[in-house]
Amino acid sequence: MGARELGLPERVGPVTGMPRQVTIWEVGPRDGLQNEATTVPVEVKLEFLDRLAAAGLTTLEATSFVHPKWVPQLADAEELLERLRRVAGVRYPVLVPNERGLDRALAAGVRHIAVFGSATQSFAERNLNRGFDEQFAMFEPVVSRARSEGVDVRGYLSMCFGDPWEGVVDPAQVVRAGRNLLDLGCTQLSLGDTIGVATPAGVERLVTAFTSAGIDVAGLAVHFHDTYGQALANTCAALRLGVSTVDSSAGGLGGCPYAESATGNLATEDLVWMLDGLGIDHGVDLDALVATSTWLAGRLGRPSPSRVVRALGG
Amino acid sequence: MGARELGLPERVGPVTGMPRQVTIWEVGPRDGLQNEATTVPVEVKLEFLDRLAAAGLTTLEATSFVHPKWVPQLADAEELLERLRRVAGVRYPVLVPNERGLDRALAAGVRHIAVFGSATQSFAERNLNRGFDEQFAMFEPVVSRARSEGVDVRGYLSMCFGDPWEGVVDPAQVVRAGRNLLDLGCTQLSLGDTIGVATPAGVERLVTAFTSAGIDVAGLAVHFHDTYGQALANTCAALRLGVSTVDSSAGGLGGCPYAESATGNLATEDLVWMLDGLGIDHGVDLDALVATSTWLAGRLGRPSPSRVVRALGG
Repeated sequence: MGARELGLPERVGPVTGMPRQVTIWEVGPRDGLQNEATTVPVEVKLEFLDRLAAAGLTTLEATSFVHPKWVPQLADAEELLERLRRVAGVRYPVLVPNERGLDRALAAGVRHIAVFGSATQSFAERNLNRGFDEQFAMFEPVVSRARSEGVDVRGYLSMCFGDPWEGVVDPAQVVRAGRNLLDLGCTQLSLGDTIGVATPAGVERLVTAFTSAGIDVAGLAVHFHDTYGQALANTCAALRLGVSTVDSSAGGLGGCPYAESATGNLATEDLVWMLDGLGIDHGVDLDALVATSTWLAGRLGRPSPSRVVRALGG
Repeated sequence: MGARELGLPERVGPVTGMPRQVTIWEVGPRDGLQNEATTVPVEVKLEFLDRLAAAGLTTLEATSFVHPKWVPQLADAEELLERLRRVAGVRYPVLVPNERGLDRALAAGVRHIAVFGSATQSFAERNLNRGFDEQFAMFEPVVSRARSEGVDVRGYLSMCFGDPWEGVVDPAQVVRAGRNLLDLGCTQLSLGDTIGVATPAGVERLVTAFTSAGIDVAGLAVHFHDTYGQALANTCAALRLGVSTVDSSAGGLGGCPYAESATGNLATEDLVWMLDGLGIDHGVDLDALVATSTWLAGRLGRPSPSRVVRALGG
């Protein structure tokens, strides 16, 4: 008999400090698919979104309005959103890099957007073609226009724990970047370990730096990559401090888990397994989610890097 | 530039409750290799052990005196131990299932052995051909003779969190099994999540059950499998309670990480990355260890499942 039929994982929690409920911010359709070399048909993306919603996920980062030249995989954003079968109670945020992206998003009827900031000067220059301080000037009209239209804005911060050019990142600088985004009008911050180098001690230090600066933990999300195998341990550390929004990607989609530069996202299935054991509500049907990731892996032509999908997938 | 050259992972700890130093009990040469389908030459095993010691590991579970019919891969135990170049300060424990195995181990000059008990009735019957209570009678002469010869005895307990036939395992029963092994003369218990189903809440509950029963945490080790991706998060939970001996396997050797029944051990490299970030001393040179696992993966003809080895390996 399988582990699931035997009642595993056992629901043991709650653990001190952890929230009773967690919102999983599913990034697979956007962050997961954006680096796929082969174009994924819009019909597959739509079925993927349908199945994720049916599995109980309530926040699906659907696509991006980055210029198609930079992310050709998501060049079908308008068509996808036009054909998307929206499910009641499910949010479909999209990534918006600039005002032109916001125009496209608003025209498509989007109600939740995310901007993508950097915690470091080096990555701001390389990814945004802006300096550390200048990036906020770029985001200002995007966030203010969005908010004036009643659109919710998440602020991503990348390289919060380490940067591939600068190495160690000062938590005070990350807090400063986060404060800037909140002051612009962002309603949530997602703290990203873009290159996967964080460990639980660093997570504790950074989350504590935010709360010590008077920023409510309810407005913080965490976004871990499993490059060095630390993503779930880091997530657990954040939960202990009360973080209740966690980013993850169905099946661990994202980056290339088999290359030297492995940068896979935390797999939603592995997160759900842990949340189940911790007694934290999340609303996701694990078996339906595993079936979805197994199906998508078949469409992408390679196995999911998620341990749970490998163990339970057909 | 690579993460290591940039000073990553950053040493951030210590974290409340965690030990300042951890002993890594390296099980790769025994638990890792025992399920390899193709016979690994004794010369490769010897070089593996040499390189692990050179990388700074001080406890190397070298082989097993289980009957060669059951574990043909380790049928060369006598030759291995005769040719082994023992390094000062390094322990080379071996697994011993019964008195016949003990005779062989003592004849080979072994000073540290481990017996392999079960926390459940079902696994005791299937793995040991004994009932839950009867297994201790089987271990009694092994442990007492070993101790009278001045040989140190570790007691493994398998299926401490879940069992493939029984499902959920009662912590009180695990504590009872552990108490029995300690009463026989075992000097350390290794609490094993043999099928990888535990989550951090279950780890906290079990370790606390042991300490509440008056069993010193200094005598406890943890042994996690990554079947559902939980091994490192579980290890972190144990460290928070003061556990200071952690089992792991270089490169994540063990089981078959690509099969449905994936049962890989926690990878030593992924553990070392986390310990570095937590500011916990361990004595291991991560780069030398990655080089060792990369070399062995080449000899075994398939990539290591360790995320750190994949990210850093050549």
